[in-house]
Amino acid sequence: MAFNSTVFQKEKIVLGGTEEWIVRGGRHLFPLLPKAFAGIRQIGVIGWSSQGPAQAQNLRESLAGSGIRVKVGLRADSHSIPNVEKAGFTEANGTRGDMYDVIAGSDLVLLLISDAAQADNYDRIMAAIRPGATLGLSHGFLVAYVKSSGKAFRNDINIVGVCPKGMGPSVRRLYEQGRDINGAGINCSFAVHQDIDGKATDQALAWAIGLGSPCTFETTLEFEYKSDIFGERGILLGAVHGICESLYRWFRSHGRQQDDAFLDSARSITGAISRQISAAGLLGTYEALDEGGRQLFKKAYCACYGPAADILTEIYEEVESGNEIRSVVSAAHRLNRFPMSEIASTEMWQVGRSLRSNRQSEIDPLTAGVYVATMMAQVDILRAKGHPYSEIVNESIIEAIDSLNPYMDFKDVAYMVDNCSTTARLGARKWAPRFDYAMTQSVLPVMETSREQNEALFQRFLDSDVHQALSVCLALRPPVSIAVLS
Amino acid sequence: MAFNSTVFQKEKIVLGGTEEWIVRGGRHLFPLLPKAFAGIRQIGVIGWSSQGPAQAQNLRESLAGSGIRVKVGLRADSHSIPNVEKAGFTEANGTRGDMYDVIAGSDLVLLLISDAAQADNYDRIMAAIRPGATLGLSHGFLVAYVKSSGKAFRNDINIVGVCPKGMGPSVRRLYEQGRDINGAGINCSFAVHQDIDGKATDQALAWAIGLGSPCTFETTLEFEYKSDIFGERGILLGAVHGICESLYRWFRSHGRQQDDAFLDSARSITGAISRQISAAGLLGTYEALDEGGRQLFKKAYCACYGPAADILTEIYEEVESGNEIRSVVSAAHRLNRFPMSEIASTEMWQVGRSLRSNRQSEIDPLTAGVYVATMMAQVDILRAKGHPYSEIVNESIIEAIDSLNPYMDFKDVAYMVDNCSTTARLGARKWAPRFDYAMTQSVLPVMETSREQNEALFQRFLDSDVHQALSVCLALRPPVSIAVLS
Repeated sequence: MAFNSTVFQKEKIVLGGTEEWIVRGGRHLFPLLPKAFAGIRQIGVIGWSSQGPAQAQNLRESLAGSGIRVKVGLRADSHSIPNVEKAGFTEANGTRGDMYDVIAGSDLVLLLISDAAQADNYDRIMAAIRPGATLGLSHGFLVAYVKSSGKAFRNDINIVGVCPKGMGPSVRRLYEQGRDINGAGINCSFAVHQDIDGKATDQALAWAIGLGSPCTFETTLEFEYKSDIFGERGILLGAVHGICESLYRWFRSHGRQQDDAFLDSARSITGAISRQISAAGLLGTYEALDEGGRQLFKKAYCACYGPAADILTEIYEEVESGNEIRSVVSAAHRLNRFPMSEIASTEMWQVGRSLRSNRQSEIDPLTAGVYVATMMAQVDILRAKGHPYSEIVNESIIEAIDSLNPYMDFKDVAYMVDNCSTTARLGARKWAPRFDYAMTQSVLPVMETSREQNEALFQRFLDSDVHQALSVCLALRPPVSIAVLS
Repeated sequence: MAFNSTVFQKEKIVLGGTEEWIVRGGRHLFPLLPKAFAGIRQIGVIGWSSQGPAQAQNLRESLAGSGIRVKVGLRADSHSIPNVEKAGFTEANGTRGDMYDVIAGSDLVLLLISDAAQADNYDRIMAAIRPGATLGLSHGFLVAYVKSSGKAFRNDINIVGVCPKGMGPSVRRLYEQGRDINGAGINCSFAVHQDIDGKATDQALAWAIGLGSPCTFETTLEFEYKSDIFGERGILLGAVHGICESLYRWFRSHGRQQDDAFLDSARSITGAISRQISAAGLLGTYEALDEGGRQLFKKAYCACYGPAADILTEIYEEVESGNEIRSVVSAAHRLNRFPMSEIASTEMWQVGRSLRSNRQSEIDPLTAGVYVATMMAQVDILRAKGHPYSEIVNESIIEAIDSLNPYMDFKDVAYMVDNCSTTARLGARKWAPRFDYAMTQSVLPVMETSREQNEALFQRFLDSDVHQALSVCLALRPPVSIAVLS
């Protein structure tokens, strides 16, 4: 992957010995957007849930005065219509319309509706896009769906992806901060899936820069959906939920009080451990421990890495084979018969929601060892599968420590799982129990034995080139916090 | 389904208002086997794990003097060769040979090797079967594999199934008991999947009767593999494991001592509850409780039925779509990198294995309500999917209470999971945590509230026609215990 742009400058970075290319953004580049968008008169933003409001408003502002219209398309019965009108996308001024009309009338169609809606309305959406137009996706689900269901994309349109590394509200807030703070904005990955006229790369880069992305790196939509669907089942949501439930019970059965067990499991991960990784990296988190803490971290790391890699490999291969996507589509169709229940009724979340202790979270060395081992297993699997390092580091580490974990520290893990996208929620509910059982059956019992540790395994952690790659990517972060805390 | 036989008499039974046909077996029918096997000179029994030894020995004995040879085929490097020779299937007397030679030389090929081996060697096995021969399967996995991998069977062979409703050792032991005790033997289902010469039905029935089946009922290999793979992930193994882990922790957190928590969860199900269902049916188990017990049973039943039906529906649809089979095949290929760990390290199995209490298991009404609700959900799903009632009752109730649960009462649930077939073991490990989480998050918390119960749901249990169907099938059981307790 080494893209070429005729409009924007690219810049080389080296991650773990591999060259990658990025494009830096900024408001000074907005005047270049019309050139990159040459031939595009209307951008249709379809959907108004998380990404829709942010992307429509950011692009409208970035393209002000360019003559390119940003128009929002919704189902006729959408309950979002009042909010869209309030945001100034009105039927009266010609910037709001019926979903299929907007698709048909746009030269660039940003399809930001839910995964299930993308799958269920696939044929009609595809039929509505005008020949020669560009379909824009903000994650790779549709590519996964097309592949797993044996369909194929039309070959007379461009298909590109721009995937912000933060939730919609962050994409909007950091863009607004970017008016005053240079470099504020959410980093994006971009991908060119199909390019029929040689314009796709510049269109994708312009879309990312128009959203306010301070640093845009390249991937493919295949890699993107795999790392995305895999990651939320793994360290981002599923693994962290299962690990917390298991650790909490283990601390309780080893005599810790309820509040302490909660603070040393969930809060330690979402608070102190995440902040430390964000500030000092994975290695820095280990090195900051005292000698006893280091030994405990190492023991936990060595006990956890294998069982975590086992489940994570299974998840990756289920995503890769299309099984996981087929399962999500079929599960979504069962939701009217079996609505998803909430997961917050177990003791630990009840304790967390009525915490009496004022103690701040600290780095529990056992919890840190388990968490970092799972994160490293995820990184190593993605590396072995050929994902670009920029994607691995952003999706498996930075998204966790800077975006999701701070939110979960504020709300809690169970709340996050109960309130994320249907695809992510189904995945977390499916895989968290597997991580829990692996921890409870295979990892934690080892902590009570004096079994010899796998020195080579831990040395691989110490020597991993992820530490260099992470430090480069940490330096490319926006200068303001991306976490949503409301 | 209403088969016709030119050799054996069929008999009508009525289950839940639906007519089905069965064939009763017995040693007096052995003289008819050569007629049903007309044209078959050699039966090849491929594999020597669970079913192989039983089926080869039973058929050899049933066909003694008929001139039909029973020959065992194994891989050249099989470690079973000494056992096969010891059982009298010797190279010297021409009844043991190389697997592919035996396949090629047989008119009826009973393929009793592991699921993974069936899948991995599919092309070579198929190529070796002589045109016009009959392929016999003892469960439907291969049909599932062929379907999920987009392959197709050869159309110049018969394909039949005879599926004993007990493990291999039971098939052998009850056959031996049948020499003295009329009717001892393991019931079988049979299926005709492909019939090119009109002989398949009689061949299948003769195979079943030759194994000693006292009662043979009809299904399809599609139904068989679905109910089989579904059932072991559900009430037979996966559900019962997850339910036990969850109930144990719940009893512990509500003040019961370790021994009592174990006896009232796992042992209650595998012991007292199973014996009571076996003797008095599902309704009889409820009715035998005192008033307080009935109320607790009902509350547990109503809390559990929905969450259990949710997961069970997911399992069924994963099996139906082929996802579950693809997952098993891909998981089997990972086993060299990630060997399966054992699941018995959690507190409850450690407690169970060093039990100090001499108390016998009793029917805990909460445990019974949860267990029967899960069993009923499984029955109702299979009924809605069109499975024959004989199959539903035998695979989802009788196999549990008369075969697996007594074995688990003797060894324990974790031991059973750790020592069953790879397909079942993978499935149980995948789905048990899901049942556990559903119990812990959604079912057990309801037990502490005074939430109103779903009277209509419980009335459906009381009125279900499964009670009549179960009583008919219980009457068709062999007169001796089928459980393996060694």
